[in-house]
Amino acid sequence: MEGLLLVVSGPSATGKGTVCRQLVNETDVELSVSATTREPRPGEVDGVDYFFMTEEEFVKTIEEDGFIEHVENFGRRYGTPLSYVKSKISSGRDIILEIDVQGAAIIKEKFPECILIFLLPPSIEELGARIRRRGTETKEKIAQRLSKAQQEIECIVNYDYYIVNNEVEQAVEDMKSIIKAEHHKLCKNVSDQIINSFKEEKTDALS
Amino acid sequence: MEGLLLVVSGPSATGKGTVCRQLVNETDVELSVSATTREPRPGEVDGVDYFFMTEEEFVKTIEEDGFIEHVENFGRRYGTPLSYVKSKISSGRDIILEIDVQGAAIIKEKFPECILIFLLPPSIEELGARIRRRGTETKEKIAQRLSKAQQEIECIVNYDYYIVNNEVEQAVEDMKSIIKAEHHKLCKNVSDQIINSFKEEKTDALS
Repeated sequence: MEGLLLVVSGPSATGKGTVCRQLVNETDVELSVSATTREPRPGEVDGVDYFFMTEEEFVKTIEEDGFIEHVENFGRRYGTPLSYVKSKISSGRDIILEIDVQGAAIIKEKFPECILIFLLPPSIEELGARIRRRGTETKEKIAQRLSKAQQEIECIVNYDYYIVNNEVEQAVEDMKSIIKAEHHKLCKNVSDQIINSFKEEKTDALS
Repeated sequence: MEGLLLVVSGPSATGKGTVCRQLVNETDVELSVSATTREPRPGEVDGVDYFFMTEEEFVKTIEEDGFIEHVENFGRRYGTPLSYVKSKISSGRDIILEIDVQGAAIIKEKFPECILIFLLPPSIEELGARIRRRGTETKEKIAQRLSKAQQEIECIVNYDYYIVNNEVEQAVEDMKSIIKAEHHKLCKNVSDQIINSFKEEKTDALS
């Protein structure tokens, strides 16, 4: 049975990272490993934290259509390697990645069988409170972030599932149910496999 | 939020009844109540066990297109009342009904938003063993039932989910996950509701 590619988006400060880390700790789901051209930090391991690439390797991989999606941030490149995702999934592992709404749309296009999950804050008010509690942003900056959150939430129409992150434990449980249900979903392939496995049994011999 | 109409099929002796009853005992899901023209047995309550109807009432309901599906068995009629299902669902209750593959196909046509779940035995061999353990059937009859089971399993292509009933507890847990996931599913309506509820909040006042 194939694994799942789970893609999680949601406004910043909604708690995507915490929810994904806890899910990975409590289940067999693995965090997807991205490729990057930035330097490894002390303790970071190639193939575990990131696939570290030179600029040349990264560009070559783009040209070979080897990324599901890729972006550039402040001169550093990040991408999701297609071959890595495919090999994980075909070996039956579920992998999860956190990405913004634009990235998620690109992944869905290239990988229609992925599961898009949108993590929502309980409310904009609560999101504002969470950002204020961090104490790192001006009043103006917070207003900007909240208005951006509202815009991002409009992209929810493209997603398969939503989860409200009221409490991390509950959000992780919701995620687990979605994953379990998806593993019980029928499609043409799975149906054919089931029908064939039951057909192989001879009823005469079994009565 | 609307409730779900869950429809469970599977070969006879797979354990549909046991799984559905346990689900109903452990959750808020309700067993759907059918209409019938047969006489109430001692202790049976109208509107709880069945909606008891006269032949005339039943035929009138058919003519008014008031059943999602209906059948006749040995001169007795059984049907799933449309208005009952609609009122349960719109009040937010999940209801479940057990039905054969033909009945399920009719329900899906009349009620496309229903969730079709196929309950499978672990194998035809195990299904045969379960029927033999009951000790009520001839060798020939068992072979017929197993061959019918294989035919029914071919209808799995029309279903949304499958569950293997290896152990009742596990099958009920799988059912719960499917229900929970379905309540987190996004469609146009749900997306619009979410977008609107977040839009109503003014970001300026909250920063």
